[in-house]
Amino acid sequence: MTEQKHIYFFSKGETDGSTKMKKLLGGKGANLAEMTSIGLPVPPGFTITAEVCNYYSEKGNYPEDMKKQIEESLSKLEGLMGKKLGDDKDPLLVSVRSGAAQSMPGMMDTILNLGLNPASVQGLIKISSNKRFGWDSYRRFIQMFGNVVMGIDGEKFEEKIEEMKKEKSVDKDTDLTAEDLKELVGIFKEVYKSETGEDSFPDDPKEQLYKSIDAVFGSWNNPRAKKYRKINNITGLLGTAVNVQTMVFGNTGENSATGVAFTRNPSTGDNKYYGEYLTNAQGEDVVAGIRTPCQLTVEDSKIWAETKKVLEKERCEKFPSLEERMPEPFARLVEVREKLEQHYQDVQDLEFTIEEGKLYILQTRTGKRTGTAAVKIAVDMLEEGLIDEKTAVMRVEPKKLDELLHPQIDPAALVEIIGKGLPASPGAAVGKIVFDSDDAEEKAANGEKVLLIRNETSPEDIGGMHASEGILTAKGGMTSHAAVVARGMGSPCVAGCGDITINIKSETCRFKDKDYKEGDWITINGTNGEVIDGKVELKTPKLTGNFAKVMKLSDKFRKLGVRTNADTPEEAKKAREFGAQGIGLCRTEHMFFGEDRIPAMQKMILSDKGEAKDEALEKLLPMQREDFIGIFQAMEGLPVTIRLLDPPLHEFLPNGEKAIKELSEKIGISAETIKEKAESLSEINPMLGHRGCRLGITFPTISRMQSRAIMEAACKLAGEGVEVHPEIMVPLIATEHEFKNQEEVIREVAKKVIKESGQKVDYKVGTMIEIPRACFVADKVAKNAEFFSFGTNDLTQMTLGVSRDDAGKFMPEYVEKKILPQDPFVALDQEGVGQLVKMAVKRGRSTAKDLKIGICGEHGGEPESVKFCHRTGLNYVSCSPYRVPIARLSAAHGALESKK
Amino acid sequence: MTEQKHIYFFSKGETDGSTKMKKLLGGKGANLAEMTSIGLPVPPGFTITAEVCNYYSEKGNYPEDMKKQIEESLSKLEGLMGKKLGDDKDPLLVSVRSGAAQSMPGMMDTILNLGLNPASVQGLIKISSNKRFGWDSYRRFIQMFGNVVMGIDGEKFEEKIEEMKKEKSVDKDTDLTAEDLKELVGIFKEVYKSETGEDSFPDDPKEQLYKSIDAVFGSWNNPRAKKYRKINNITGLLGTAVNVQTMVFGNTGENSATGVAFTRNPSTGDNKYYGEYLTNAQGEDVVAGIRTPCQLTVEDSKIWAETKKVLEKERCEKFPSLEERMPEPFARLVEVREKLEQHYQDVQDLEFTIEEGKLYILQTRTGKRTGTAAVKIAVDMLEEGLIDEKTAVMRVEPKKLDELLHPQIDPAALVEIIGKGLPASPGAAVGKIVFDSDDAEEKAANGEKVLLIRNETSPEDIGGMHASEGILTAKGGMTSHAAVVARGMGSPCVAGCGDITINIKSETCRFKDKDYKEGDWITINGTNGEVIDGKVELKTPKLTGNFAKVMKLSDKFRKLGVRTNADTPEEAKKAREFGAQGIGLCRTEHMFFGEDRIPAMQKMILSDKGEAKDEALEKLLPMQREDFIGIFQAMEGLPVTIRLLDPPLHEFLPNGEKAIKELSEKIGISAETIKEKAESLSEINPMLGHRGCRLGITFPTISRMQSRAIMEAACKLAGEGVEVHPEIMVPLIATEHEFKNQEEVIREVAKKVIKESGQKVDYKVGTMIEIPRACFVADKVAKNAEFFSFGTNDLTQMTLGVSRDDAGKFMPEYVEKKILPQDPFVALDQEGVGQLVKMAVKRGRSTAKDLKIGICGEHGGEPESVKFCHRTGLNYVSCSPYRVPIARLSAAHGALESKK
Repeated sequence: MTEQKHIYFFSKGETDGSTKMKKLLGGKGANLAEMTSIGLPVPPGFTITAEVCNYYSEKGNYPEDMKKQIEESLSKLEGLMGKKLGDDKDPLLVSVRSGAAQSMPGMMDTILNLGLNPASVQGLIKISSNKRFGWDSYRRFIQMFGNVVMGIDGEKFEEKIEEMKKEKSVDKDTDLTAEDLKELVGIFKEVYKSETGEDSFPDDPKEQLYKSIDAVFGSWNNPRAKKYRKINNITGLLGTAVNVQTMVFGNTGENSATGVAFTRNPSTGDNKYYGEYLTNAQGEDVVAGIRTPCQLTVEDSKIWAETKKVLEKERCEKFPSLEERMPEPFARLVEVREKLEQHYQDVQDLEFTIEEGKLYILQTRTGKRTGTAAVKIAVDMLEEGLIDEKTAVMRVEPKKLDELLHPQIDPAALVEIIGKGLPASPGAAVGKIVFDSDDAEEKAANGEKVLLIRNETSPEDIGGMHASEGILTAKGGMTSHAAVVARGMGSPCVAGCGDITINIKSETCRFKDKDYKEGDWITINGTNGEVIDGKVELKTPKLTGNFAKVMKLSDKFRKLGVRTNADTPEEAKKAREFGAQGIGLCRTEHMFFGEDRIPAMQKMILSDKGEAKDEALEKLLPMQREDFIGIFQAMEGLPVTIRLLDPPLHEFLPNGEKAIKELSEKIGISAETIKEKAESLSEINPMLGHRGCRLGITFPTISRMQSRAIMEAACKLAGEGVEVHPEIMVPLIATEHEFKNQEEVIREVAKKVIKESGQKVDYKVGTMIEIPRACFVADKVAKNAEFFSFGTNDLTQMTLGVSRDDAGKFMPEYVEKKILPQDPFVALDQEGVGQLVKMAVKRGRSTAKDLKIGICGEHGGEPESVKFCHRTGLNYVSCSPYRVPIARLSAAHGALESKK
Repeated sequence: MTEQKHIYFFSKGETDGSTKMKKLLGGKGANLAEMTSIGLPVPPGFTITAEVCNYYSEKGNYPEDMKKQIEESLSKLEGLMGKKLGDDKDPLLVSVRSGAAQSMPGMMDTILNLGLNPASVQGLIKISSNKRFGWDSYRRFIQMFGNVVMGIDGEKFEEKIEEMKKEKSVDKDTDLTAEDLKELVGIFKEVYKSETGEDSFPDDPKEQLYKSIDAVFGSWNNPRAKKYRKINNITGLLGTAVNVQTMVFGNTGENSATGVAFTRNPSTGDNKYYGEYLTNAQGEDVVAGIRTPCQLTVEDSKIWAETKKVLEKERCEKFPSLEERMPEPFARLVEVREKLEQHYQDVQDLEFTIEEGKLYILQTRTGKRTGTAAVKIAVDMLEEGLIDEKTAVMRVEPKKLDELLHPQIDPAALVEIIGKGLPASPGAAVGKIVFDSDDAEEKAANGEKVLLIRNETSPEDIGGMHASEGILTAKGGMTSHAAVVARGMGSPCVAGCGDITINIKSETCRFKDKDYKEGDWITINGTNGEVIDGKVELKTPKLTGNFAKVMKLSDKFRKLGVRTNADTPEEAKKAREFGAQGIGLCRTEHMFFGEDRIPAMQKMILSDKGEAKDEALEKLLPMQREDFIGIFQAMEGLPVTIRLLDPPLHEFLPNGEKAIKELSEKIGISAETIKEKAESLSEINPMLGHRGCRLGITFPTISRMQSRAIMEAACKLAGEGVEVHPEIMVPLIATEHEFKNQEEVIREVAKKVIKESGQKVDYKVGTMIEIPRACFVADKVAKNAEFFSFGTNDLTQMTLGVSRDDAGKFMPEYVEKKILPQDPFVALDQEGVGQLVKMAVKRGRSTAKDLKIGICGEHGGEPESVKFCHRTGLNYVSCSPYRVPIARLSAAHGALESKK
């Protein structure tokens, strides 16, 4: 048998691995090899394969020749660096790190400074000319080795540090002197002995190394790591690899430095090197924020100084750019940037260290970026020829587009978060608190910026919501009234904020322990759900040409149509600007809440069946017709799906003595009767009550009136040469008979109106699929329905048995405890609801091969859900206007991912 | 080609058909043949096959030789009867009737007295010595022929009768004389001519016959018949057959009679001939109720006379039995009874006519019977050796057992129905109206019989419900609180009676236009949902030995276990008497409503997480433990499935200022706080809210307390030698993680308690499957759950998107319009919910082959649903105590039907 290769070396001269060998070398090992092989100055080292881990797991010992290979690699490394492990002049120090093919908490992680002992610590001190650094590194190594490799409780070491500080009467670790730390090394060794029962702390670097390797491999099967793999369903891995790498130090003196850099600006996307560094420092110092880091380039340094009002002289002295301070390593760093982008074809986020003027790259990874940056970078790289169109599309995360469409809180602003709710409608808003919708309208009319706070909103609040900068509610979920309406308007909204208690009477509210009154300034961030004290500076985004380019590219690749949910011509127009290809859901109920309409609607509800009811409906007809005319005009040439009346009738009746009395006077029905009727209509679970097609079936005149209004509007416009495509949608069916019942009513009216008008209008009759049972009988329903539209809001409520308005009490805990991966009202529950959707599509198309199928729930604008819709073979998604761009991009992602 | 047989003759001498030839001869033709062939005196005739109809439908004409065969058959019939069609002395008259293999409204039905013309009417008058009868028969024939065969609007004839009555100044048709009727015959012929445009009414009997046959075959494809077949999904039939049969007359004089008879008493099941007759009468006269019919047997006649206080002399003169009045035909009728029961092996309901002393049987069919009769007849026939055990079991309709278990309204009682609601809990109840539960308790304590009327009940009404004879609610459905509790108690209940308006303040109520006040007598019939004015006599059923025999037989054949839903030891005991094999659902929440418990429960809810909450739970622990001890004792040796707390917490908090104030004083939490908490806990859709396992997950201490109470009770009894099998059930899961979360909590406590007690108790941990999503992930859930129990109440609510408490507003209309075949809360919706159940069973057993699966929704006691459970492979059903016998019998039916 030929000798098996257990070790992959990486150095400028010889690199055995590559990024393709993740399974064998783990993520970290493969990356180190890759970086080395493309010529980056990576501190050399070697990786022991995951196969060895597998061997060890199975047999409990190591392959015979492993030790030999390690010895050889170590010698090679020593030769290459011109240093020796344990040397008392110029010692080689190494790090030992685990690294599996997938990142995995729970395993042993990192040992630094391995190789230190009484002799080599002197060498380190000599090299760094820094006694304190030497002893501090040594005591840290003992502590880390003791804790991580030998399992000693970290507290045992910390206690000793505390004792020492007390003894020396100092406050901070950094106040301890080199002598103190030297003494601590001795004390730590005693702790080590008593805790492990060993004779002494291992001074032999090889013993240190083998024990560390042992510990890493052993940790693969420790309970935490096993549990993590089980929970996350990680199987099929060999084990972890072990990386042994030369240590380099950015803190050996003024000729050393450490820093981080992005190959392009991650905030703006500008094609410029962006980064920070500190001289004579370790990597963690940059992050820790104790010293002020300096900028990489002269240009950025000058901009920085200007913002911080630092004079040029001071800047040059105290905060010079790396470009100025260390031109030579900087030049190397610029070469690295070039290499990285050429190689990875994406923005890289790298860590570097300069040791005695020599540049080392420690890590590189894909750089995170803002939405704005993502769009710019994708378009730039495409135009630079670095990436192709498909890649450019894939480079922009759909949900990040929100940033481009709504005002944002300046990330640099220092804010006080006073509460947290659901991110119900994206964007940030600043305004003075109002608790009443009428107040909101009044104050806004006077030019004040107001922010409406309510326990929950109802259709009567629409005026106030329109007038406000944003909406904050104490109750309700992602698809509560406030959330849905706000998204439609494009207004920021935080919903279901449990931290707030509202006292309507006194016009005050309390966030945890802070009180606010009407007129106080407040800021909300609808993108992440935060509520912030006072008036925060907002950044208003601009839609650049790059945005349009990304949209155009998306349209090139996507298969899924994108429509919008819109109830008004204004919303429809906005959505059309954003690229909507029709209306997927036009809710007719919102139309009845106007001040001029609600009395007629209420009269209709309060009348018993018969003439009075019909008369009230007669009054509503021309108003509805005008609504539809406006919407059809705005959507000329595109399909418009109109859902017949859906909510239970009691939603239209007033609450409270006063409102009832007013209505009584207005419509001439006694207050007593109104109250009785409202009570008799009230429901225990209105979600599952007398609504949807159930209304249309028990009150066919309502369906008739609405169908007539739709068809009269369509015929009128058709007569004027406007192209209209009405699609009438029956809501909430659970059986095929319900659909057939309503279809008959609609077609009868439609035929009559078409005949009366003498126009030709192509209309469709279809249905919402939003009740689980409808999915099971989809084949039967599809025999008659011309289209399906999944109402995934309600479908989610019923499939999971969760009322979206009441879910706030347990949903956060559910997501936190991983009972659900995420709020199912935000992203479609593919495991549960998804199965129903797939089934309904399959069954529906089994009887109607070319059935047009869409989705009009809130999920139609959520990226993962849109991709699911693509995979499931839907024809289109429909979402609120401001989500249309996100849906377009997500649809393209879905199509491109499927192709792979 | 040999000549095809188009006609099947039936007469004493020659009968070609049999009951097995339904497809060819139709149901009616086959039965006539069958009766004739077993020697019953059926008026002879012949059947033209459905094949002819098929031929006619396809080709538009008749097979060549059909006419020839008809002529031959007609000649044979005339020969046999010694009469000739159209004869002026003793004419043969025939009826022509349609009859397909399935009964089918919408086709042409019946022509009687065919063969009458100016000559034969004289013959008929001669034979019957009844001029008026002759002319009345003739005018009826013209009317029937004109209307049914020629499609003349019946109104055209009726108008003429009205004119004639006016002219003759008489009120009733029967006041018209023979002369008047003769005149009417002439007038009718004129109507016929002008309406059909024919020269004259056909006098030729053959022409009458062929036209009638034509009309019957033609009616097979009339729109009404086609629509009926489409709606009822009737396919694969050849068409209808046509039956031509000799007319016989029970109204030719005092030597003639007509009557109906049951071979055994359909009300008591007594093995005695039971029936009524009228001399000189037609069949319809018996049904019409103008004359008082007499009894068949002397015995019945005497009993009848006694009940009606008719003296023996008067009885013998005016109301003699057939046995006395016509001993010869009666003797024949007794022979017929013998033949029928021997042949059909079941009770027969027959129609007979005696023409001039000669008995004819016109029809026989299986006799409908009461539950009591069904049980007795089945056992008697089994013991007589007439039927086998399986048949005996199948002879009892499960739902009819209700009658045997609850008081019933005497069917003979004349009642005034003042309202109708849902038949929520079977049996009838009589009592004085009370509107308040406390009043009910108080009055009942004073020995008054009360009937509780409420808009809806809540757990606080339990005392009053117990004290009342029955419960009537204005709102709520078949599974509302009132309905569920009443069924558990075995109390009659009518729920959701929309006809009632209650005025609590004035202690009055109104049914449509009738007012009632507290203390007025009222009767409810929980078996059919009727509300009846005043105090109605009730019949208290007795459980006979036959009932036990049927139950024992059922147990012999059924495969399905039958458990009960019981929350108290009393219910458990009752159910055990009825044969329950364990508890399938013990709801723990009802236990918290006792006066001594609710304060502790409320305190627990009102306390924030932490010590106070734990303390309140501590207080509940010993009470819960006592509950379980009682139930385990009652169910010794049998499994007891206990569901952890299910309803949302706000259900336990008081409503209204006064109740809140009282509670505040009792538990020392401010009224303000209670109100705020109640408001913050209130939910928009409580059905889909913070309940079930969601409570256990957010408040694990509740699950811990309950698990401890269960296990401590079990261990204590185990220590006393009582055999206990607790099965702890987690409610309302939608994901496998929810189950795992709660399972961990339960097992941890259980292990601890077992260890503490030193007892060995075998316990199981399983889950309710009541959310659609749970069915989709049943395979994953079954990896950990030891049993499933379908909560089909909630599963129905969510699958159909219907709140059972709110469904009253449209469900009746839905059932009426056939949108749903029946209320899905009464009988399991097999088309929808059934698919989910099947899927969950299949998936659950795919990972846990021997998974124990039951159902504990209300459907567990509904016969068709129980049979579905058998077919779907469930292990048991669980239902309210009084439904246990029904479930046992239904399970046997399911098993026997599957075997076929």
